[in-house]
Amino acid sequence: MFSVNQGALRLLEEMISNPEYYGVKVEKIENGGVIVDAGVKARGGYEAGLKIIEVCMGGLGKACLTVQQYGDLVLPAVVVYTDEPCIATLGSQFAGWRIKVGDFFALGSGPARAISQEPEELYRKIQYKDEVDVAVIIFETDKYPSADVFKYIADKCHVDPSKVYSVITPTYSIAGCTQISGRIVETGIHKLTELGFDPRKIIYGAGVAPIAPIHPKFARAMGRTNDVIIASGQVFLTVDYDGTDLEDYVEKTPSSASKIYGKPFFEIFKEAGYDFYKIDPAIFSPAHLTVSNIRDGKVYTAGKIDVGLLKKSLGV
Amino acid sequence: MFSVNQGALRLLEEMISNPEYYGVKVEKIENGGVIVDAGVKARGGYEAGLKIIEVCMGGLGKACLTVQQYGDLVLPAVVVYTDEPCIATLGSQFAGWRIKVGDFFALGSGPARAISQEPEELYRKIQYKDEVDVAVIIFETDKYPSADVFKYIADKCHVDPSKVYSVITPTYSIAGCTQISGRIVETGIHKLTELGFDPRKIIYGAGVAPIAPIHPKFARAMGRTNDVIIASGQVFLTVDYDGTDLEDYVEKTPSSASKIYGKPFFEIFKEAGYDFYKIDPAIFSPAHLTVSNIRDGKVYTAGKIDVGLLKKSLGV
Amino acid sequence: MFSVNQGALRLLEEMISNPEYYGVKVEKIENGGVIVDAGVKARGGYEAGLKIIEVCMGGLGKACLTVQQYGDLVLPAVVVYTDEPCIATLGSQFAGWRIKVGDFFALGSGPARAISQEPEELYRKIQYKDEVDVAVIIFETDKYPSADVFKYIADKCHVDPSKVYSVITPTYSIAGCTQISGRIVETGIHKLTELGFDPRKIIYGAGVAPIAPIHPKFARAMGRTNDVIIASGQVFLTVDYDGTDLEDYVEKTPSSASKIYGKPFFEIFKEAGYDFYKIDPAIFSPAHLTVSNIRDGKVYTAGKIDVGLLKKSLGV
Repeated sequence: MFSVNQGALRLLEEMISNPEYYGVKVEKIENGGVIVDAGVKARGGYEAGLKIIEVCMGGLGKACLTVQQYGDLVLPAVVVYTDEPCIATLGSQFAGWRIKVGDFFALGSGPARAISQEPEELYRKIQYKDEVDVAVIIFETDKYPSADVFKYIADKCHVDPSKVYSVITPTYSIAGCTQISGRIVETGIHKLTELGFDPRKIIYGAGVAPIAPIHPKFARAMGRTNDVIIASGQVFLTVDYDGTDLEDYVEKTPSSASKIYGKPFFEIFKEAGYDFYKIDPAIFSPAHLTVSNIRDGKVYTAGKIDVGLLKKSLGV
Repeated sequence: MFSVNQGALRLLEEMISNPEYYGVKVEKIENGGVIVDAGVKARGGYEAGLKIIEVCMGGLGKACLTVQQYGDLVLPAVVVYTDEPCIATLGSQFAGWRIKVGDFFALGSGPARAISQEPEELYRKIQYKDEVDVAVIIFETDKYPSADVFKYIADKCHVDPSKVYSVITPTYSIAGCTQISGRIVETGIHKLTELGFDPRKIIYGAGVAPIAPIHPKFARAMGRTNDVIIASGQVFLTVDYDGTDLEDYVEKTPSSASKIYGKPFFEIFKEAGYDFYKIDPAIFSPAHLTVSNIRDGKVYTAGKIDVGLLKKSLGV
Repeated sequence: MFSVNQGALRLLEEMISNPEYYGVKVEKIENGGVIVDAGVKARGGYEAGLKIIEVCMGGLGKACLTVQQYGDLVLPAVVVYTDEPCIATLGSQFAGWRIKVGDFFALGSGPARAISQEPEELYRKIQYKDEVDVAVIIFETDKYPSADVFKYIADKCHVDPSKVYSVITPTYSIAGCTQISGRIVETGIHKLTELGFDPRKIIYGAGVAPIAPIHPKFARAMGRTNDVIIASGQVFLTVDYDGTDLEDYVEKTPSSASKIYGKPFFEIFKEAGYDFYKIDPAIFSPAHLTVSNIRDGKVYTAGKIDVGLLKKSLGV
C-alpha cells in the first residue's frame, strides 16, 4: 500500500530545501514540528500552491498551471489529475479533519488524515489507512499552529511531534487560492459520494479550474474560491460501475443541480447567516463533469461553465 | 546520431524504479527480457501513459496532460511536441512492425524498430538507423509476450534477449488510450508521408488530442481511439519545403479529406467486414492541422474539430 | 536577495550538458566566454526555447508548451508564469541593453542586465541589483558575439570574460520565436510601467501567447513575433495597489488601446520607414489582459483576442 504521508514528505522536502524559490518560510517549533508557511509571513505563490496540491494528494496526483479564457476574462487555471482518485482526494486531500486546540481552529486536509482516520465514516467507506511514522497536514489558515496543535496531531497520528509537518496557506493568498482550485477533482468525487456513489468505483480523475483572484476580506475570498469551482470547474472521471443509475448520478452532480445555484457564494453564505451548515451541500460541486464507465463504455455529461456567474462573483 | 533506444531506456528506467507510482508491473522473463505491464495485470494510468508516449518517441518528444472542453464534453487531452518529428514519430513511435510469433500477434511500435528497420521502406525514406545493444518495443496488447517473442525481437535487433524491454498497454486501459492519443503528431506526419510528402522536410511538430474514454469491447475501444484523432485531433507542423504544392498537401491531410469521413470508426470498421486493409487509409489522420513553411513563411490550415462526430463515437 | 544570474546558470547548465537533446551548440571562445547557440549553426527547437525563457527570467518563472486553437488555426503556444514578476520580467527578461561592439549590434536581455543595471532608469524604478560573479545574457541575433563583445559585457558586469554566458537565438528560429512569445507577461508589465504604473506593485503574473510561425525574412519574422503578442497574447496580473485609477490603467494597456492598432506589425514597421522609434510604443502590448487587485478585491479586464489580425499577419 502506497503511503500518502511519505509521498507528501518527498514533495514537501523540495519546498523545504528551496524556501527562496517557493517563497515559503520554514519554521521548526519548540516540540520539533515543522511549519511550512506559504502565505502568512511568507509570500508564497503559484509554484508553492501547485506543489502543495501534490503534497495534499499525498504524491498521488499531479498539478500544473495553465492560462484560460472564460468569456472576456483571462485567468490562470490549475489542471489536476490522479491515477488513484479515491485515496488521493477523499483519503488525503479532502479538508475533513476539524482541529480545535485552544484558540486555533482549522479544517485539516492532506495525508495526516489517513493516519488519524478523520472523518472515520469516510475512511470506513474508502478502506484506506496509512500506517507510518510521519504526518503531513495542510491548513487553510492565516495563523501559525502552536506546539499544542502539533502535540494534538501527533497524538492522534501516533507519531512524535517532531515528525509532524504542517503546511499553511491563507484563503487570501495565491498559494491558498491555487491549492483550493486544485481540489476540483476532489469536489466532484466528494459530491458523488454524498449522493451515495461508492468512491472506490472512481478509478481515474482529471479536472481544471480557474484560480480565484484574491479578495482581502475572508468571506469574500472564500466565496470566490468556491465560485471558481461552482461556476467554472470541470471534471472528467473514469468509473468501474455495474449499476444502472450512473446517468442519474451524473445529472445530480454539477453545482447547477442544487436549488440554491445561481448567485455568488458570498451571497449564499450571507443568506445562510454565515453558517456553513445551513447551506445546501449540493452546491459544493464542479460546474461541469463528464463520466466514463469502463464496464459498458457509456459516457455521460452534465452541467456547463457559467461565465455570467463567475463574473458576478468577481464583480466584473 | 541520437539513439532512440537509449533515450527510451532512460525514461523507462524511471517507471521500472517506481512501479507503484506508475501503476506498472515489471517482470523479468526466463531469457532475461523485461516486460513493463501498464494495463494487463497492472492498472497503469495517465502517468504511465504519458511516460510511455515519451518512451515510444525514443526520448525525442514530450507529452503532458491537459483538460479540454469539446462542445458539452470535458475530456483529458494529451499535448505532444517534438523537435525531431521525423525520427521521433516515423522512426520510432509509429506502430509499423508486425510481430507474429506462435499465437502472439501485435503491431510493435517504438525505438526497437529503428534497429530492425521495420518497415524497411519507411526507414529507407527517413534514413535513420539506431545501432545500439538495447531494444525497447511497445505493444498495444492485453497478452504478455513470451520468451519466444523476446527471442524473435532480440534476433531481429541483434541484441541479447536480456536487453529487450517490452512495454504493454491494452487498448481498453487508460495508459493505452493515453499513449494512442499521444500519436497525434505521428498520425499527421504519417498521412502526409502517405500522400507523398518527404517526412524529412517536417522539422518540428506539436499537437493535442483528447484521450478516448475506455470501452470494454476491443472493436469499440479501438474505434474510439481512432475517433479522438479523426474527429478532434489537432496538429501544427513546421516544414522546410521548396515545392509549390504544400497547400495541396495540407488540404488533403485532415481526416475529413477521406470520402468515408463522417461516421464513427467502429461503423467504418464493421462495414469493411472488420478488415483494416479494406478501409480507406486517408481516414487515419488528425481532424485539424496547420502547417508553416520556413522557406517562404507561408501558413496553411485545413480541417476542423467535429464535436458531433466525437459525440456520436462516444454515444453521448 | 535571489540572484537571477545564478538562477539562470543552473538552468543553462542543463542545456550545456545535454546539447544533443536541446539541439544547441556550445562554444567556448578565446577569452573563455561561452556561447549557447540555439538556432544559428545549431537547430534549436521548442525545448531549447522553453528553457531559454526560464533562463531569461533568471530562474524566477516557468514556461511550458501547449497547443491552442485560434479561429481556424492550430498553433503551439507558451504558458508562462512567475511569482516574482517585477524582477523576472523587467529586472531580467526585458530586452533593454543595447550592445554595440564593432559590427555586432543586438538588444541584450536576461539576468546580466541586473548586474550592469541597463537601462539604469528602469533599475532605479524596480530597485533590484544582482551582485554576483557570473553573467548570463540572451541575444536575439543570428551572429556569434565576438571575444570583444564578451569583454565588453564582462567589463560592464565586473566579471571575468570566462564567466559570461551568451545564449543566441535568431528571430527566424523555433527557439527564437518560442522565447519571444515567452515575453508575454513581460510585455504587459512593461506597457503598464510605460503608462506610469509602479511595476513593484505587480506581485504575480501569468500569460499565454501563440508561437509565431517562422518567416525567413527578418522584418516579416519580427513582424509576426510582435503580432502573436499584439493580436493574441493574454495576460493575468495580480497587483497590490492602493490607487483609484487601476481600471483606467487596465483599459489603456491592451495593444488595441494604441491608435495604430489594426494592421500587421510588418505594415506598421514599413509605414514608419523601418524605424522602430517612430512607432507608437503603445502598440507593444498583449491583446487581452485581466488584472486583480488584492487590496480591494477588484478585477478589471480589457482587450480581446483578434483572430482576424493574427490571420492577416500570417497571410492565412
